[in-house]
Amino acid sequence: MGDPAGIGGELTLKAWQKLHTKRAPFFVIDCPNRLKKLATDLSLKIPIKEILSPADALDCFGQALPVIPEELPEPVIAGIGDPGNGAAVINSIKRSVHFVLNNEASAVVTNPINKAVLYQSGFDHPGHTEYLADVANSKTTSIMMLASKQLRVIPVTIHLSLEQAIKKLDSSLIAHTIRTAHEALIQDFGIGAPRVAVSGLNPHAGENGSMGTEEIDLIIPTLESLRNEGINIKGPLPADTMFHANAREEYDVAVCMYHDQALIPIKTLDFDNGVNITLGLPFIRTSPDHGTAYNIAGKGIANPSSFIAAIEMAVTMAKAKNETH
Amino acid sequence: MGDPAGIGGELTLKAWQKLHTKRAPFFVIDCPNRLKKLATDLSLKIPIKEILSPADALDCFGQALPVIPEELPEPVIAGIGDPGNGAAVINSIKRSVHFVLNNEASAVVTNPINKAVLYQSGFDHPGHTEYLADVANSKTTSIMMLASKQLRVIPVTIHLSLEQAIKKLDSSLIAHTIRTAHEALIQDFGIGAPRVAVSGLNPHAGENGSMGTEEIDLIIPTLESLRNEGINIKGPLPADTMFHANAREEYDVAVCMYHDQALIPIKTLDFDNGVNITLGLPFIRTSPDHGTAYNIAGKGIANPSSFIAAIEMAVTMAKAKNETH
Repeated sequence: MGDPAGIGGELTLKAWQKLHTKRAPFFVIDCPNRLKKLATDLSLKIPIKEILSPADALDCFGQALPVIPEELPEPVIAGIGDPGNGAAVINSIKRSVHFVLNNEASAVVTNPINKAVLYQSGFDHPGHTEYLADVANSKTTSIMMLASKQLRVIPVTIHLSLEQAIKKLDSSLIAHTIRTAHEALIQDFGIGAPRVAVSGLNPHAGENGSMGTEEIDLIIPTLESLRNEGINIKGPLPADTMFHANAREEYDVAVCMYHDQALIPIKTLDFDNGVNITLGLPFIRTSPDHGTAYNIAGKGIANPSSFIAAIEMAVTMAKAKNETH
Repeated sequence: MGDPAGIGGELTLKAWQKLHTKRAPFFVIDCPNRLKKLATDLSLKIPIKEILSPADALDCFGQALPVIPEELPEPVIAGIGDPGNGAAVINSIKRSVHFVLNNEASAVVTNPINKAVLYQSGFDHPGHTEYLADVANSKTTSIMMLASKQLRVIPVTIHLSLEQAIKKLDSSLIAHTIRTAHEALIQDFGIGAPRVAVSGLNPHAGENGSMGTEEIDLIIPTLESLRNEGINIKGPLPADTMFHANAREEYDVAVCMYHDQALIPIKTLDFDNGVNITLGLPFIRTSPDHGTAYNIAGKGIANPSSFIAAIEMAVTMAKAKNETH
């Protein structure tokens, strides 16, 4: 469901519109009546079908959007988050994890939440991803991948100031990120022999120490020890020359040292269709690469591209995972 | 000329081949005999015409590559820089500046040099650009712009480690860079009312201080004072969302805080056709966005795209400058 005051409901309706003729069946855990009202308000002729268990979704998906009911106690007002609905939002996340761990579903796709609103309703996790890991009882630190048709990137550090990001870099963090990426490419993407490209931190990847020493002191030795574990790694590469079309042919994922180094190239190449993928959870989880967008909620103008891409990516990964196992 | 042991001669020959039917006349300051030999060796049927003064280039450019002789005392061996030819390389740079300051030429395009080789022949400037400024007796600190068909970017700091780049940022450096960019867009690019986009340093441009404070402490106040001078500035913008196609429509140049932030997007979008432009010199100067490429020199396989783009950019800028004045 995500935050019902955001654009999630609209995205879900539009995703069904686009995907119901394709082999990408999904169901949503949400309040059926609010989705019916939303569809009417937005003049979207989308039949809503209440279902009792995930298995029912397969039968009806071609004709109607399957909804497993999660009732909302408070009326939804577009653009205004309501802590009174927080417990239902959290419950829809929790139930999605139970379904997927119970093999009733193949993957979880999450609509955006508003953490500030959830905190007011007693949510005590730093974010969506940490909560998913907690429900699944997972102790592994998960990592974030962004993927589009042209490129997959993973930032080693994410939402830190640039100065903090430099300080946070260490061998175990870089190694954990690369190992998790390597394993996920095999398990969830069906890539038998993954090729991992790794950026340097500094311009020209430090140019032999003349522009920074983190490559020599930290990154090169870490990559060397990962190569000894059998991971195919290129790098550290100069970040500015590793993302053009020919360079991208040489690897399956680019692991970058900080947020903008990873996100600039993927968002520059394809702003609308990037998908956020959480690696290291015991199940497949994708999400759109944007937030609740309160400012445009309920207006019918939300762009469902990233959310649809997130569902399609989850389907692709679930198929690859089935074939691998 | 650039370094004769590098790919510069080959690029010059190929540039003439591509441009001699267009209105982009240029001449090269180089050794005519070595260019004749190189053309023969590479099976390029290109007539070489020795000229005495730049004005002669206009007449012959359609039929032959015009060369103002700069003799090389040592034989050229592809891929092996020779300090014995260093004085001639430096002299060709010096003469190009004199021609342009004397209004005998409209712009300087420089082929790549090898600084290490020049140092051995007594060159005592940090680099090409500093030498050009010195010959022109310019006291302004020049700045580097990279330009392609899709994007113009300027990094505020360039060849520093990321940690050093953060420390180097200050209000006067940012302001000088933006003012120079603003003026160059008017003077050299013929853009009457330039729109300057400026990135933040941190992810999400610091997100109101939650991921770094440089935006609040440094960048925002600097931009505010530049706006009061009448410069049209957007920013600080999150770097990851400012380079996609729609975002690029909103500005004429993107000023970025460090090397990779500026160079990742431009090289990701167009690796081969980026042009390096030096702003703040008293004349137009462009150069290709690559080095001497000793490893492929003399083989005939060098890609002249960036060098040709550098010449075409110089021509476009010279025309715009003429119209502005």
